[in-house]
Amino acid sequence: MAFKGDVLLVYLPSTAPPQFLERVCAKFPHLQLRWIETPVQGGQLLPPSHLTAAQWAGVTMMCIYHVPEPEVIPDVWFFQTASAGTDSWAKHPKYLDPDVIFSNASGCQPPQIAEWVIGTWLSHEHHFQVYAEQQKQELWWPRLEMEVNVSTGRRMGILGYGGIGRQCARLGQALGMEVFAYTRRERSAPESRRDDTYCVPGTGDPDGLIPARWFSGTSRDAINDFLAQDLDLLVVSLPLNEDTRGLLGTEQFQILGRNRNRTFLSNIARGAIVDNDALVHALETGLISAAAIDVTDPEPLPKGHPLWKAPNIFITPHIAWQSSKYWDNLSDLLFKNLEKLAAGEPVINPDKR
Amino acid sequence: MAFKGDVLLVYLPSTAPPQFLERVCAKFPHLQLRWIETPVQGGQLLPPSHLTAAQWAGVTMMCIYHVPEPEVIPDVWFFQTASAGTDSWAKHPKYLDPDVIFSNASGCQPPQIAEWVIGTWLSHEHHFQVYAEQQKQELWWPRLEMEVNVSTGRRMGILGYGGIGRQCARLGQALGMEVFAYTRRERSAPESRRDDTYCVPGTGDPDGLIPARWFSGTSRDAINDFLAQDLDLLVVSLPLNEDTRGLLGTEQFQILGRNRNRTFLSNIARGAIVDNDALVHALETGLISAAAIDVTDPEPLPKGHPLWKAPNIFITPHIAWQSSKYWDNLSDLLFKNLEKLAAGEPVINPDKR
Repeated sequence: MAFKGDVLLVYLPSTAPPQFLERVCAKFPHLQLRWIETPVQGGQLLPPSHLTAAQWAGVTMMCIYHVPEPEVIPDVWFFQTASAGTDSWAKHPKYLDPDVIFSNASGCQPPQIAEWVIGTWLSHEHHFQVYAEQQKQELWWPRLEMEVNVSTGRRMGILGYGGIGRQCARLGQALGMEVFAYTRRERSAPESRRDDTYCVPGTGDPDGLIPARWFSGTSRDAINDFLAQDLDLLVVSLPLNEDTRGLLGTEQFQILGRNRNRTFLSNIARGAIVDNDALVHALETGLISAAAIDVTDPEPLPKGHPLWKAPNIFITPHIAWQSSKYWDNLSDLLFKNLEKLAAGEPVINPDKR
Repeated sequence: MAFKGDVLLVYLPSTAPPQFLERVCAKFPHLQLRWIETPVQGGQLLPPSHLTAAQWAGVTMMCIYHVPEPEVIPDVWFFQTASAGTDSWAKHPKYLDPDVIFSNASGCQPPQIAEWVIGTWLSHEHHFQVYAEQQKQELWWPRLEMEVNVSTGRRMGILGYGGIGRQCARLGQALGMEVFAYTRRERSAPESRRDDTYCVPGTGDPDGLIPARWFSGTSRDAINDFLAQDLDLLVVSLPLNEDTRGLLGTEQFQILGRNRNRTFLSNIARGAIVDNDALVHALETGLISAAAIDVTDPEPLPKGHPLWKAPNIFITPHIAWQSSKYWDNLSDLLFKNLEKLAAGEPVINPDKR
């Protein structure tokens, strides 16, 4: 009689996906589900402070984007957060309580971000923007002088082989590319290549089977060695921290510039991992062929910033995470965690310092 | 002593790929290879009529885009054509000679065409053209009101499951899509799902393992039933013939319009398969969500044609076949055919009426 007496409060800006409701009803008939759609006001998600005492009553499990006041959630022993990062929980007594279980939303974003990476790569390699301009002029002009570099046999290097990197690898493999992975810690044993983070079904590389070669380390020499591997497409999918801030600077672009094929840089991680001046210089001097960046430093990127007009750059305003399926993915993760909890097993994406 | 006394004349607008040379020298040291790069004059490939008697002397095998005069190739018993279609050979005595072996270049184009299909699909779904316009204005504006429909869990329907359709399927599968295939003849037995056409290594679905469902037939009812399968992305990769001319007309777009999700149409086959007026009407009235077309009827599409300004359409001037790897693929096919011939086996892509 799993979850008898438990009340799961879900507070998200979405209605409950029918598939989630069906699965919960069928498998956990004793769990009381209280799904409350988060109102949006002026483009902002309304925090749960407007919920009534009746809505808070008896709640023991939560799935939420916001951080509620401790007073309204005295009995909650499980939190499924709606974001991958849990910085905002750091000092919350529930987060500090060793008996309270937290799972974060890592793994709900890789499909859309990997689509952004591959979509921007293909758009550039196939000159879609040139043809979009010609279409505006109703101009039928096959530009056979512009080479189309197909992806088969080319090499994708992935800096940071987490959920996003793994779905990029899956797409690269399907395109016929060779994949090289770079991770912070060494992954020589096959078991060490697994990633137990949540993975949207049918995506990613949870077992780490795709890369042809693995590289690792934290030193500049280790990174530089990876960058010298004749990468056609370099995907930056690392977290930002003191090791990775400014990781790709003048020296690294010089190394890329010595590659046999010029590299296309894709950054969907954080702007501060790449040195702006070095990137603009690399594009202007042809050390790399092109760049697609969804993240900049600073954000928003101000008008007049040199990145906007660098040659062969495509910039989007930190939107690659967007997806209409985000809440479907999160509720799939939530359901799988209910199964784990009911079986007395550790949750997926456990999140505690 | 395979090919002792044979002379293979290759006449293509490319130098010999080093990998091809290495493989031929290692495996067929007795074959005399005569690789002559086709000159380009005024954007046209120069036909081989300028070759000298010495260059024609002793030629017994050929790989060529053009159709040479019969007089210069009396002893040729094997032709590897550089195009997928061999219409221009139809009345040539060598083609009519039952003892002369022909192989066409089918399968050398699917990687780039499938990249075009998936690239235009992702560009549309992720609103890249909107962001490209904003970038020109140096405008950082996340358009969160524009939904991003990620591909996971969505359905790709492929009309015509040849080499191009199979590589589209492979990419769709990697994106987490469900694939439905439509073929002219029924393919209920697993063996019948194989495709022995040349396939670039690491691409495609030669064994026909990807589709979740197979549909078939030549009647309008059969086609209409396929179109009613709630397809998110419909790829047209059929040959043009009397059965397929005007295949997608008013009735078919009405059927697509009744789907649960509006369909994105991708046509990389031939323009005449789709009725122009019906397509423009379907886009204007929202029967389908969008279209990407590399082919039109007529070509070139004249200025002022209603297709140019239809809403949510992306048009390229019949360039999706382009690829810098075309000659690499063709020489890989040629080498594999040399292996077949040396082993006394049928060639890949046999081409004789």
